[in-house]
Amino acid sequence: MALIVQKFGGSSVADAKRVMNVANIVSNTYKAGNDVVVVVSAQGDTTDDLIEKAKEINPSAPKREMDQLLAAGEEISIALLAMALESLGCPAISLLGWQAGFNTNSVYGSARIKNIKPNRLQAELAKRNIVIVAGFQGVNRYDDITTLGRGGSDTSAVAIAAALHADKCQIFTDVEGVYTADPRKVEGAKKLKEITYDEMLELATLGAQVLNNRSVEMAKKYSVELEVLSSLNPVPGTIVKEVTKMEKMLIRGVTKDTDVALVSILGVNDNPGVAFKIFDKLSAKNINVDIILQSFGRNNTKDVVFSVSRENGPVAAELLKDLSVLEGAKIHCDTNVAKVSVVGAGMESHPGTATKMFEALYDTGINIKMISTSEIKISVIIAADEADRAVSAVHKAFIPND
Amino acid sequence: MALIVQKFGGSSVADAKRVMNVANIVSNTYKAGNDVVVVVSAQGDTTDDLIEKAKEINPSAPKREMDQLLAAGEEISIALLAMALESLGCPAISLLGWQAGFNTNSVYGSARIKNIKPNRLQAELAKRNIVIVAGFQGVNRYDDITTLGRGGSDTSAVAIAAALHADKCQIFTDVEGVYTADPRKVEGAKKLKEITYDEMLELATLGAQVLNNRSVEMAKKYSVELEVLSSLNPVPGTIVKEVTKMEKMLIRGVTKDTDVALVSILGVNDNPGVAFKIFDKLSAKNINVDIILQSFGRNNTKDVVFSVSRENGPVAAELLKDLSVLEGAKIHCDTNVAKVSVVGAGMESHPGTATKMFEALYDTGINIKMISTSEIKISVIIAADEADRAVSAVHKAFIPND
Repeated sequence: MALIVQKFGGSSVADAKRVMNVANIVSNTYKAGNDVVVVVSAQGDTTDDLIEKAKEINPSAPKREMDQLLAAGEEISIALLAMALESLGCPAISLLGWQAGFNTNSVYGSARIKNIKPNRLQAELAKRNIVIVAGFQGVNRYDDITTLGRGGSDTSAVAIAAALHADKCQIFTDVEGVYTADPRKVEGAKKLKEITYDEMLELATLGAQVLNNRSVEMAKKYSVELEVLSSLNPVPGTIVKEVTKMEKMLIRGVTKDTDVALVSILGVNDNPGVAFKIFDKLSAKNINVDIILQSFGRNNTKDVVFSVSRENGPVAAELLKDLSVLEGAKIHCDTNVAKVSVVGAGMESHPGTATKMFEALYDTGINIKMISTSEIKISVIIAADEADRAVSAVHKAFIPND
Repeated sequence: MALIVQKFGGSSVADAKRVMNVANIVSNTYKAGNDVVVVVSAQGDTTDDLIEKAKEINPSAPKREMDQLLAAGEEISIALLAMALESLGCPAISLLGWQAGFNTNSVYGSARIKNIKPNRLQAELAKRNIVIVAGFQGVNRYDDITTLGRGGSDTSAVAIAAALHADKCQIFTDVEGVYTADPRKVEGAKKLKEITYDEMLELATLGAQVLNNRSVEMAKKYSVELEVLSSLNPVPGTIVKEVTKMEKMLIRGVTKDTDVALVSILGVNDNPGVAFKIFDKLSAKNINVDIILQSFGRNNTKDVVFSVSRENGPVAAELLKDLSVLEGAKIHCDTNVAKVSVVGAGMESHPGTATKMFEALYDTGINIKMISTSEIKISVIIAADEADRAVSAVHKAFIPND
């Protein structure tokens, strides 16, 4: 008998039939003798519909009220799932974020969990109740409802697993696990049996949609064993954990991220502190910079190129036009770019990994605009319309078709 | 400057346009210098839609989960109204039942308010915020969400007005006030300028749909001045208060209630304690008896006739069949009946009121099955299909067309 946390996304509970499907999965886990905590998101398009309602009334609605509004979505789905479980003869109780003890800071729309007071959760489990918790939401110190932002339900699930020292946290999705590349697009993409937290983190950050990276960070911090698996097809998924011995693979996956823009500043006067002034200005506006490249330009000037999220590209370019130290420089923003990355702990001990990737791209005639590397990943920025071809070529180079 | 509580029903906030209409009413009250607390119900059909969703999954869903589910309805409407007010430049904050301090007992589906802890409400008002409170909901001592049942938002509004010692509680509806009879059905029905709590209570209990009777009871108990008025047409409504001097009218209104069944027990053996045993059996099953009539039957037997709600009629008849003291008696239930009542504090000092009512019915050829009177009302049970004619005739007798 174990304590298992199971998380289901919005599409898994989109209608009555799917709610019953989830109830059956949970019921089987419970009836096998396990204690079960379930975290659910709002049904299907509920959150989008609520956002739409708000926009119609006030396009710049206060964020506190937005969170109050959106929290209603999970309130509906948790109650429905509890009803479904009761109809299967399983005692179940639904808890809102605040009822489940989710204390967050006050950053409405993307609040951070400060702690979970697990008293109520533990009391309900002790009564052998299945506890269904509203994902994505919490409460701040003023007793106001907050939401955790994109992918927040994953984070809720991992946080509960950590707080209760659960044996496992299962993240149910519409895919069967973590793949070496998007299986809908890349021929020969393979499902991974295991992956380390760090690898998963790189994959999540680099555009693999399976798991939210905040949830992976938290799982790593608290050593929560994650399993990514399908709510529709009952086969083993991918285990995410700190692995010492693992199936030997040079890389774990190839990802594509199109949420990228490249800002270039050409002909910057070579004075001290220019770089500082550029990136200070951006961070003051909460713009995260990913890759930075600085090179010598003509006539004793420098060129600075950096990548940010697509949305922030034009914003950053506009901001920098007002910067006096950049007078005379040419500022340009290119949003037709994408980032392609390979991830794998194995590359640490294989110096040839980067070369192999660049060779695959070269053979396919793809031009690399920027490069960034870490111990377990290599990313390149290329033209957006070449990204899918690039992923296939790189994947084929590292993970040959069977 | 006054403190005013304003309550809006679900149809008043059914869509974005109506939410803006409500926001305008509230904003005008606020900008005139008043402190404003607003109580809203769930939008339009939201509650019915949620009930439908629940039924699809579990037709006998646990009541706790039902309340958890339904509470999401007001969460949506309060947030939207706050956003609408912000767009009009009015600082507004929405509060769920538990955030507003609504403590109730644990009778899910029809919980009673135990008390309101007004700290948060007062703090927000002190900041000159418009406070928007979710009607119909509260929280019990276990921190579980409860709902107050039918008409619960009226009760929420009156409870807040009482807790904050508000100067006035305005109940906005789709009619312009309280009428002497249903204006859609009875020619010459007049809007009342004022009415006493007791009269309103009788009207509410007897089938006038304007105000929930629990809310009127509470308003009377805490001397909360109520005003019933239209959210669509800005004209003065009807004031409900303890009035010493009032416009002279013999009666305040004529109502019809079709939620009635008549149970007759003919030929009851005349032993002591029979009546006790009958009504004890019914009260044990929570069946409320309204009017009771006992008369002598043939051969030293009695006849007992009583009225209950339509739903309870067949249930009561069935229950009594098992009662040994009623052996040999004939038990019959008639659901084709209706109750027509006249209400008015003025009748206390006018002994001729009943006669006038009976005369009007007699002139219209309507047979009276039962009669019940209190100090300020007279009710008769008649055939259901004669009820509308009866209301018109009685109304005409007391309140002639202009």
